[in-house]
Amino acid sequence: MNLLEVCRLVDEALNEDIGSGDITTDAVIDPNAAAKGKIVSRAKGMVAGIPVAGLCFRRLDARVTFEQAVEDGVKVSRNDVIARVSGPAASVLKAERVALNFLQHLSGIATLTASFVEAVKEYSTRILDTRKTTPGLRILEKYAVRAGGGFNHRFGLYDGILIKDNHLRFQTPAEGAPAALVAAVTAAQRRAGHLQKVEVEAETLEQVKEAVEAGADAILLDNMDVETLAKAVAIARASKKAILLEASGNVSLRNVRKVAAAGVDAISIGALTHSAPILDIALELRPA
Amino acid sequence: MNLLEVCRLVDEALNEDIGSGDITTDAVIDPNAAAKGKIVSRAKGMVAGIPVAGLCFRRLDARVTFEQAVEDGVKVSRNDVIARVSGPAASVLKAERVALNFLQHLSGIATLTASFVEAVKEYSTRILDTRKTTPGLRILEKYAVRAGGGFNHRFGLYDGILIKDNHLRFQTPAEGAPAALVAAVTAAQRRAGHLQKVEVEAETLEQVKEAVEAGADAILLDNMDVETLAKAVAIARASKKAILLEASGNVSLRNVRKVAAAGVDAISIGALTHSAPILDIALELRPA
Amino acid sequence: MNLLEVCRLVDEALNEDIGSGDITTDAVIDPNAAAKGKIVSRAKGMVAGIPVAGLCFRRLDARVTFEQAVEDGVKVSRNDVIARVSGPAASVLKAERVALNFLQHLSGIATLTASFVEAVKEYSTRILDTRKTTPGLRILEKYAVRAGGGFNHRFGLYDGILIKDNHLRFQTPAEGAPAALVAAVTAAQRRAGHLQKVEVEAETLEQVKEAVEAGADAILLDNMDVETLAKAVAIARASKKAILLEASGNVSLRNVRKVAAAGVDAISIGALTHSAPILDIALELRPA
Amino acid sequence: MNLLEVCRLVDEALNEDIGSGDITTDAVIDPNAAAKGKIVSRAKGMVAGIPVAGLCFRRLDARVTFEQAVEDGVKVSRNDVIARVSGPAASVLKAERVALNFLQHLSGIATLTASFVEAVKEYSTRILDTRKTTPGLRILEKYAVRAGGGFNHRFGLYDGILIKDNHLRFQTPAEGAPAALVAAVTAAQRRAGHLQKVEVEAETLEQVKEAVEAGADAILLDNMDVETLAKAVAIARASKKAILLEASGNVSLRNVRKVAAAGVDAISIGALTHSAPILDIALELRPA
Amino acid sequence: MNLLEVCRLVDEALNEDIGSGDITTDAVIDPNAAAKGKIVSRAKGMVAGIPVAGLCFRRLDARVTFEQAVEDGVKVSRNDVIARVSGPAASVLKAERVALNFLQHLSGIATLTASFVEAVKEYSTRILDTRKTTPGLRILEKYAVRAGGGFNHRFGLYDGILIKDNHLRFQTPAEGAPAALVAAVTAAQRRAGHLQKVEVEAETLEQVKEAVEAGADAILLDNMDVETLAKAVAIARASKKAILLEASGNVSLRNVRKVAAAGVDAISIGALTHSAPILDIALELRPA
Amino acid sequence: MNLLEVCRLVDEALNEDIGSGDITTDAVIDPNAAAKGKIVSRAKGMVAGIPVAGLCFRRLDARVTFEQAVEDGVKVSRNDVIARVSGPAASVLKAERVALNFLQHLSGIATLTASFVEAVKEYSTRILDTRKTTPGLRILEKYAVRAGGGFNHRFGLYDGILIKDNHLRFQTPAEGAPAALVAAVTAAQRRAGHLQKVEVEAETLEQVKEAVEAGADAILLDNMDVETLAKAVAIARASKKAILLEASGNVSLRNVRKVAAAGVDAISIGALTHSAPILDIALELRPA
Repeated sequence: MNLLEVCRLVDEALNEDIGSGDITTDAVIDPNAAAKGKIVSRAKGMVAGIPVAGLCFRRLDARVTFEQAVEDGVKVSRNDVIARVSGPAASVLKAERVALNFLQHLSGIATLTASFVEAVKEYSTRILDTRKTTPGLRILEKYAVRAGGGFNHRFGLYDGILIKDNHLRFQTPAEGAPAALVAAVTAAQRRAGHLQKVEVEAETLEQVKEAVEAGADAILLDNMDVETLAKAVAIARASKKAILLEASGNVSLRNVRKVAAAGVDAISIGALTHSAPILDIALELRPA
Repeated sequence: MNLLEVCRLVDEALNEDIGSGDITTDAVIDPNAAAKGKIVSRAKGMVAGIPVAGLCFRRLDARVTFEQAVEDGVKVSRNDVIARVSGPAASVLKAERVALNFLQHLSGIATLTASFVEAVKEYSTRILDTRKTTPGLRILEKYAVRAGGGFNHRFGLYDGILIKDNHLRFQTPAEGAPAALVAAVTAAQRRAGHLQKVEVEAETLEQVKEAVEAGADAILLDNMDVETLAKAVAIARASKKAILLEASGNVSLRNVRKVAAAGVDAISIGALTHSAPILDIALELRPA
Repeated sequence: MNLLEVCRLVDEALNEDIGSGDITTDAVIDPNAAAKGKIVSRAKGMVAGIPVAGLCFRRLDARVTFEQAVEDGVKVSRNDVIARVSGPAASVLKAERVALNFLQHLSGIATLTASFVEAVKEYSTRILDTRKTTPGLRILEKYAVRAGGGFNHRFGLYDGILIKDNHLRFQTPAEGAPAALVAAVTAAQRRAGHLQKVEVEAETLEQVKEAVEAGADAILLDNMDVETLAKAVAIARASKKAILLEASGNVSLRNVRKVAAAGVDAISIGALTHSAPILDIALELRPA
Repeated sequence: MNLLEVCRLVDEALNEDIGSGDITTDAVIDPNAAAKGKIVSRAKGMVAGIPVAGLCFRRLDARVTFEQAVEDGVKVSRNDVIARVSGPAASVLKAERVALNFLQHLSGIATLTASFVEAVKEYSTRILDTRKTTPGLRILEKYAVRAGGGFNHRFGLYDGILIKDNHLRFQTPAEGAPAALVAAVTAAQRRAGHLQKVEVEAETLEQVKEAVEAGADAILLDNMDVETLAKAVAIARASKKAILLEASGNVSLRNVRKVAAAGVDAISIGALTHSAPILDIALELRPA
Repeated sequence: MNLLEVCRLVDEALNEDIGSGDITTDAVIDPNAAAKGKIVSRAKGMVAGIPVAGLCFRRLDARVTFEQAVEDGVKVSRNDVIARVSGPAASVLKAERVALNFLQHLSGIATLTASFVEAVKEYSTRILDTRKTTPGLRILEKYAVRAGGGFNHRFGLYDGILIKDNHLRFQTPAEGAPAALVAAVTAAQRRAGHLQKVEVEAETLEQVKEAVEAGADAILLDNMDVETLAKAVAIARASKKAILLEASGNVSLRNVRKVAAAGVDAISIGALTHSAPILDIALELRPA
Repeated sequence: MNLLEVCRLVDEALNEDIGSGDITTDAVIDPNAAAKGKIVSRAKGMVAGIPVAGLCFRRLDARVTFEQAVEDGVKVSRNDVIARVSGPAASVLKAERVALNFLQHLSGIATLTASFVEAVKEYSTRILDTRKTTPGLRILEKYAVRAGGGFNHRFGLYDGILIKDNHLRFQTPAEGAPAALVAAVTAAQRRAGHLQKVEVEAETLEQVKEAVEAGADAILLDNMDVETLAKAVAIARASKKAILLEASGNVSLRNVRKVAAAGVDAISIGALTHSAPILDIALELRPA
């Protein structure tokens, strides 16, 4: 991760919460009071973002000390201690909510990711995230996916070529639809940097064949049922080319194992980042 | 909402996704191509954030036109059209994901909020959000709660006094715990601005009594079961004072009706903003 | 105060003054020279902003040491030492003017505030600031008002409801003006968060009555002479409701005592922040 | 003025006031209501900053129209119309305070400056500002000084060389104090860019002589009484060199004419920017 | 390109030059004067950045009109018109230098790139840029390389895997240096996203063999003479694998053709962005 | 230099390169590995920007230590050590390119400047930079010019008055062109601050005479050949006024000595900042 960027996100989150000042803490807490506390999990799951939580306290007040009890990517049970924090009570109280908001959100993503990874552990299939992330938090959310055992798809429009259905609709070959995919893949290959692969979305087996022939490096098999997926895999493997096959669309914990069994290399799941419930985590504080 | 701030969030989200450039669109889309499309719901729910989605397209390229088909806070069914967009294909494609990420996330919050509001509709109980929001998006998430029929709790530490359990632990009266709550409420009242009320968290009926006697304007009844809640309500109402009672902790769609029935004025639910799954929404695009 | 925000203000002020470089100091001061100095008051008054002045030196160069001799909110006489500073001469010289600009401005506000507070000390009346602050410096100026013994009115449009005359002109009840105030107060109460009170501006005794009946939590008595103020107080107190009464408009050191004597709870004074002359403060420096 | 920078200042001021939203206007004003109003002076003085006030409305909502009735630098009387504004009522109400805060502050500076300029109008003496400005607003405050008929001293440490007493204390010539000033001036001349003059502060007539001999382009005569000033002028004029003489320190409207009469070319006055009371200006609004 | 980012760069450059105001133009140009001018090349070369120059004028003052006479990537001769600009004279004069600084710098890069592209036109070899760009301007400089007919290497550390000599030194296999490269490539392949290729730097033919065996997608042949390059090409081609070969180091216009003739797929040249002299371009202005 | 501003530039450059993360280093470098290295010159030249390079490492990771081996402005030969760096290998590798990009660019400027300074060392002529700098880097580039023994012309439009040919075209005196220059100089003198000199561009000897008569403090002799320059010098010197003469246009290392010999006080050279090739500098790293 880019720490400079993470610090900026932490500062903005602190400003968002503190704004013109914490009127409760300033009214009721002795500025000289010292606090000591522990961050504990209130549920079973996988933690991610502990250093980010630490930055929340320490960017606000460098006198606060923060010690991780476990590492990101570790499974925790209810009441497990995640970190210990101590320092000026007022500062700890002001940063508490922001630190927990980051930690709960990222741990929620890691926990959900880990469930999917666990579900397909018999296969070599990778669990991937998508660009369906919460605006502004992508680098953290993708970090949490990695902490949960998943892999990152591209980070943005800038670091990976993926020709989607909406792109294909703007290809206008003389002869008809099939050539659209081929034309797009060829155009992309011509423009691609030498470190960039070309992936294309296929919605039908016909398109899978076109993608294989066009020399795509990867094919996103969009919204196919498990039987069609298996056929798509067969088509691609028959080409003897090293083509990466990614399944996407309507994948849940109930069906992910079957999707993996269909033989794809990767399964991308928007829900990892757009619909993961938080992992419940709390700060227990007392005077030091 | 503060539009200047929303524009800043939109710009940052666009930069996050586009970064050094959209290498797919630049490779495969004719820069002169025009697109026309509609944003449609893929599920039943309540929409929020349509103007934010519009800003995503128009901040990137002012030539794009964006027309709302419905207003924020409206219930939609699967395949309902939410908005129409047209303009340079490349620009529409570049802003698509960011626009949908905002719209899906905010609509998810509105949808979940509306479910809670619906569940307590027989009562005058308000459904409230909390400060457990996604870092950086609080003003938008709290807007989505309002769109869903909920009400906002304070926006941050700066605009409302709420003395929590962690604050109370730092009060050190000579005689013992009960006086801690009273001491804190009194200190807060002394420092509070004349437009500010004082709310205090109570975990026991004993603390409820103290809060009532201390003259708290509002009491957050934390993690009480329905029976205890009812007793707390009785204590407060017996005082004849205009005290607002807020229930919080472990409230779900299964039990929210009973919590409302216990007689509280408001129920605050962190899940509205920290664990709402998105509402599935898509952009269907074609050449214009 | 939000220290992250104060640091940002200090950095911007330093950049504003130093810009592309301090061409005088770079030309005439030995980069290895060390300086030692004291910040002294050149007049009688009350100081505020000493830690902000300290940040000016230390954000520019962390090798500078800064020691407060007195606390914010202390009364000083001519030649009293406020703080001591030492470190690299070039850095101290570069930050000097910015540090003094903050300190003189904030101390000027504290000094003026303290004069008003002193003038009404026989009464329990609070001296309040307004939103008539210098653009960009509100959190510091409101801090200085507190240092001077005053209280803060709302910090912005976001943390307090105050219905002003210009709002009332846009209420269009069927029957006429009086109902406008009632309609506005009622609308605000319906939308207000549960930690927010509703204040309304009244320019006539008629409006005071309406405000009392509408259940306003606070009434801003605008530009009333002392006799009218007394009548307004009588009307409100007769209601037995806990209504806060705030006087505003044309209040000066000459008449503030009489305004307080009229029985209002608070007096808000724009001049505290928009027209306070500075307190003269200087830095006396010598080689270390 | 640099408009890009002014827009940034306006945006920050709007954000400072509006923050997470205008809870009063959003509660009581119909979003479709239109407003029409005029900005009027409530006192006699000189206006400055009208375009800045206009930007406040228009940056928030480009649908607002703003028409200047007079130009910056014009003298106004009580009740004179300064500008007219119309557009969505909610937007006008949200920007009102910020627009007036800028306008009142800058007009206050212009008014005070104009008084000083008027006082010395028989002489060719320039009235100058200083770097004793409100942090963050220097380019606007120095603009207001110009609007009031004054001239700008340097904008910051970056655009003019002025060797002050605190600089001189770090010159360590073998023989003693007099040579300190000469050494500093010489060092500055050697390093100065070819478009930069060298000014030095003199506190005694001895130092004035040294400054003249050292070839300073300008001498700041610091805190001298009128008699001493006259002697300093005589010394400098006797040299036949084109040396600019600037008086500074303890200049007020009472004594400024005498200071000018002493023959100096310029008089710099910190109070222009650090202690000018505002000019009272109001927005009168009504439904359109 | 990401236009939001380009606008930010333009605004910062304008602020850098205009700062607290253009004291020359404000002194000598009538604010109502209108100007009309053309941007002309003073030398033979290839232009790039015309829209960026246009943004400089239009971000400062939207009343300025700017018309491109040619497109980026076009070859121009001395005195060819590149664009026409008209509008308020003061605004055109204030933006002139910044607009030309961008345009000259980017055209210099395009011109140098075009020379290299021309030199290897008989081969299918791509001319590539590097990360040796001017801090802050990378997206523009890489755009200029494309305008000149070159291709972009990765934009940053984030969008391409390139294991360099300094990385290899930190691999510590038991057996010795050769395995270091293999170990690094294998580690990278394991962690790489499915759209990412793995490139590794090789300084010897031994390392080339290791890279081929390790399955690297691309090999950067660093600082090899033409004979060694040819041998490296032979080794890689013998593997029948689709490995991209990039030559780098000490490539100049004198030797680039020979490097291409050695059979590499791409030649990366730091000088394109770090040492290209500007293309001389001027603005000829007159009253309109 | 303004260190706050330099830190901002360094942070932006690091973010530009690292973006969403260094995917190579994160894949192949042990996070606990320590590195030790030296920055060495690969060519003969003059270094500038060593502290800036140090900031690149230390802003990214404060655990890195950075020791300068030489000072800015020192001449180095091939393989001379410039600085030593040690600390976490991953951090050193991530900051390496950005640090070198700054250092190479600034050293390139210092080296070119030093060549010009050396060429005119027999004369008292100053070598000056211009505003033809790389957008965003002006304060650093002008610092490098000083390190190379040159002097800075104005930093921007804000800190020096220079009336150029494009300004003169907008003067519209009744009688004709000559008066245009005089009118402009006079207007500028009237508006100039008392620390500002007035420079005007002259393209003909006629204009030189006008400038002398108008009392310009400095004259920019634009694009004159050496003979004309000599005549211009004679005209100006004959006036006995202290007028600074600056030559500009088509100055190269081949002719700069002759230009100096013509008697001008300063020679300004855009190429110092817009066309200086880098000085080749490398980081040699090994495990610590």
